Amino acid sequence: MAELYCKMTAEQLKTEQKELFARYNKFKAKGLKLDMSRGKPGADQLDLSNGLNEVNDYIADGVDLRNYGMLDGIPSCKKLFADLMGVQPENVIVGPNASLTLMFDYISQCVTHGAGDKPWCSLPEVKFLCPVPGYDRHFTILEYFGIKMVNIEMKEDGPDIDAVEEHIKDEAVKGMFCVPKYSNPQGITYSDETVRRIAALKPAAKDFRIIWDNAYCIHDLDDNGDELLNIFDILSQYGNEDMVIEVCSTSKITFPGAGVSAIIASDNNIASIKKRLNAQTISYDKMNQHRHVEFFGDAEGVRAHMKKHAKILKPKFDMVLEHFNAELSGRGIAEWITPKGGYFISLNVMDGCAKRVGELCKDAGVTLTTVGATYPYNNDKKDSNIRIAPSFPPVEELNLAAELLCICVRLACIEKLLG
Amino acid sequence: MAELYCKMTAEQLKTEQKELFARYNKFKAKGLKLDMSRGKPGADQLDLSNGLNEVNDYIADGVDLRNYGMLDGIPSCKKLFADLMGVQPENVIVGPNASLTLMFDYISQCVTHGAGDKPWCSLPEVKFLCPVPGYDRHFTILEYFGIKMVNIEMKEDGPDIDAVEEHIKDEAVKGMFCVPKYSNPQGITYSDETVRRIAALKPAAKDFRIIWDNAYCIHDLDDNGDELLNIFDILSQYGNEDMVIEVCSTSKITFPGAGVSAIIASDNNIASIKKRLNAQTISYDKMNQHRHVEFFGDAEGVRAHMKKHAKILKPKFDMVLEHFNAELSGRGIAEWITPKGGYFISLNVMDGCAKRVGELCKDAGVTLTTVGATYPYNNDKKDSNIRIAPSFPPVEELNLAAELLCICVRLACIEKLLG
Repeated sequence: MAELYCKMTAEQLKTEQKELFARYNKFKAKGLKLDMSRGKPGADQLDLSNGLNEVNDYIADGVDLRNYGMLDGIPSCKKLFADLMGVQPENVIVGPNASLTLMFDYISQCVTHGAGDKPWCSLPEVKFLCPVPGYDRHFTILEYFGIKMVNIEMKEDGPDIDAVEEHIKDEAVKGMFCVPKYSNPQGITYSDETVRRIAALKPAAKDFRIIWDNAYCIHDLDDNGDELLNIFDILSQYGNEDMVIEVCSTSKITFPGAGVSAIIASDNNIASIKKRLNAQTISYDKMNQHRHVEFFGDAEGVRAHMKKHAKILKPKFDMVLEHFNAELSGRGIAEWITPKGGYFISLNVMDGCAKRVGELCKDAGVTLTTVGATYPYNNDKKDSNIRIAPSFPPVEELNLAAELLCICVRLACIEKLLG
Repeated sequence: MAELYCKMTAEQLKTEQKELFARYNKFKAKGLKLDMSRGKPGADQLDLSNGLNEVNDYIADGVDLRNYGMLDGIPSCKKLFADLMGVQPENVIVGPNASLTLMFDYISQCVTHGAGDKPWCSLPEVKFLCPVPGYDRHFTILEYFGIKMVNIEMKEDGPDIDAVEEHIKDEAVKGMFCVPKYSNPQGITYSDETVRRIAALKPAAKDFRIIWDNAYCIHDLDDNGDELLNIFDILSQYGNEDMVIEVCSTSKITFPGAGVSAIIASDNNIASIKKRLNAQTISYDKMNQHRHVEFFGDAEGVRAHMKKHAKILKPKFDMVLEHFNAELSGRGIAEWITPKGGYFISLNVMDGCAKRVGELCKDAGVTLTTVGATYPYNNDKKDSNIRIAPSFPPVEELNLAAELLCICVRLACIEKLLG
C-alpha cells in the first residue's frame, strides 16, 4: 500500500529517492529515445488505411476528379461527413488535409473581414476564451493573430460555463475554442447540460464565434464511448445558428498528413466562408476526397474502421494507466482522468513539479509534450499539467516510457518536498 | 483578300452581316455546348499523369509520409522544385494543391502581419500594380482584401516599367502581381531587360512585394519556347532579395485539382512564411509530394513530360490561330499575339465590341472567359479584350468554337460600325 508523500519524513523520502534514482539511472543507461509528445497515430494504425491508395477511377459525382472545380468538395464526400456529424451536406465544406488549416483560415477571415460585424483587426482588442488545459495549436493560432487568451477552467463535464457566461459580457470577447469530445488533453466529453448552456450563450459580441473542434468525434477506445450532444441540433432553439463553427478531419482516421477535413457551419457562415474560398483556391484535392469515399463507402464504414484503431490504442492507454495506478496512486502526488477516447491522458502532478518531470524524462530519453504547452502563452501557473500521448510508441517502448515517467514524477515530487 | 471593315460602305457591311448571320444561325441550330472559358487541361492531358496514383511506398526521405510533420515539404520534392526553378531547396516550401492558395495566404499574411513593416490592415490605403490584361484570380484576391488595383499596360516585352517606376514612388503601392512567362492572357514572356528593371526597382514602400506567379514556367508549346531570366539570380545585385515571392505548381503538369505547389522566396521571407505556417498547418500532403517525385524522378523527367502536353496543346493553339488568320486578319477588327506557350490566346477586338462578342458566343452555346475579367474590377474600359482558353475542348469541338468565335467577332464589329 502506497504512502502519502506529504506524510513521510525527510528520511523516508530520501530512502525512497535513492531507490528511485537507482531505477532512473538504469533507464538512463539504456539510452532510450522514446516520443510521447504528440498525438500521432502509430505505424500499425496507419497501415489500417493503406487501401486508400488503391483507387484508380477519375470520374465521380459527374466530374473529373483530376481537374479544377467543386469549391466545397465532391457531393459524395460532403454527404459522408454530413452523415458522420449529423448535419446536412449543404452545411459542410470539405477542406484540405488539416482541420487546423480550416480553423486558422476562419480566424484569419474574422481578423481581416469580421464575422458579420467589423473586421477584428480594426478593433483595439480581441479576446478568446480558452478552456484549460487545452490544445496548444489552438493557442498558437490565437497568439499568431494577437488575440488575447483568457483561461477558463475545465471541470469534469466541460468548461466552467459560469465563468464563460461572465466573460462574454465583455464585447471584446469574440469567441472560444472547444474540443467538446475527448478534450485535448483531458479526454473529457462535454455533458448535455454543458452543450446546452453553450448553445444558449448570449454574448455581448454579436459576432462571437465558437470553434467547435470535434477532432475526436468518433475516436472511442472501446464500445463504451461517450455520447456528445450534437450542438447543431439545438443552436436554432436559441437563435444561435451562426455562433458555432465545427471542424473535424480524418487525420486520426486515415492518414494524419494526407487525410481530408471538413468545416460545418450555418448557411450564413458557409456563404461567408465560400466567398473567401472563392478567392483562396479553385478546389481542394478531390482525388483524395474520392479515395476516402471509396475506401469507407459510408459513415458506418468509418465507424467500423474506428474499431480497428480502438483495438490498437486501448492497450496503450491501459498500459499507461496501469503504471499510474501502480506507481502514482495513493501517494498524493498526481491526479488523472481515465478517458474513454481521444488521444491523450492528462496528468496533474504536485504543483511546481511538472517542468522538472519533463526535464528528468528528457534526460533519460523520453520526450513529453513540452510541459506548459497545454496552457495559453505556455503559462501553466501551477506548473502541474503534463499531457501524455500514448499512441505513437510501440507498446513495448510505451511500457518503458510510462514506467520512467512515473519514476520521474515521484522523483520530482520528492525533490519538491525536500525543498 | 480580306477588306478593312472601316473602309466598307454600309451596304457592303450589311451584305457581309447577312452572310455571317446565316453561318451564325447554322451554328446556333447545332445546339452546341462548348467551353473555352478557363485554362483547364483536357482529359487527354490528365491521362498523361495517371501513373501518379501507382505509388505504394510510405517511407521516403526518412519519414512516414502518411503521418504528421515536415512543414516545408519532403526534401526530395523541395529539391525537384528547386532544380526546376533554379533556386536552392532551402528557399522552397512545397505547398498545397494550388499556388493560388499560396498567393492568397501570403497576401493575407501581409494584411494581418505586414511584410517587415506595419500590417497592411493598419494602413489607410494599400495599392497593388496590376499588369493588364491579367489574371482574374489575382484581381479577386486583391479585391477580397480591399487592396486598390492600379492598371499597368502590358507591352510586348512585359509590363510598362516606366509606369511602374513612377507608381512605386507612392508609399501606398505595396506590390505587383506578375505572370512573367507566357503571361495570362497574352502569352508574353518578360524580356531580360524587363526582368532586370523589375529586379532593380526602388519602391518607396520598404515592404513592397512582387508576386511572381510563374504558372507557365515550363509550359512551352514546342521546342522553340521562350526563355525567362531567373529573377532570383539577379535580385541580390540590387539588394532586393526580399522583394519577390515566386510561386509555381504542377496544376498544369499533372492534375489541376490534385497537384502540388511551391513558393520560392528569400531566407527572410521563407522564415516569415514558416512562422505563419507553423500556426496554419502541421504539414501539407506529403503522400502527394512523394507521388510527384516518384512519377517524375527529377526535373528532366518533368521537362520530358511537358513535351507530351505540348503535343496535345500545340494543334489546339494552331487551330484557333488558323481561324483567326483566315477570318479576322486584314479586316482591321482584331489583334492577337501568337504565344509560344502558356494556356491562352488574348484577342483584342475593335473597341466597344468585346462584351457583344461574349453575348453572341454565349447565345450560340460557346462560353468564353467572362468578358472584362482580364481587367481589375471587371472593368475593361475599352471593352476590347477577350481571353481564349483553347486547352479544354477536344480538337473537333474547338474547331467549331473557334469558327463561331470569329463569326461573332465579325458580327459584333459590323454592328458597331453600322451604329
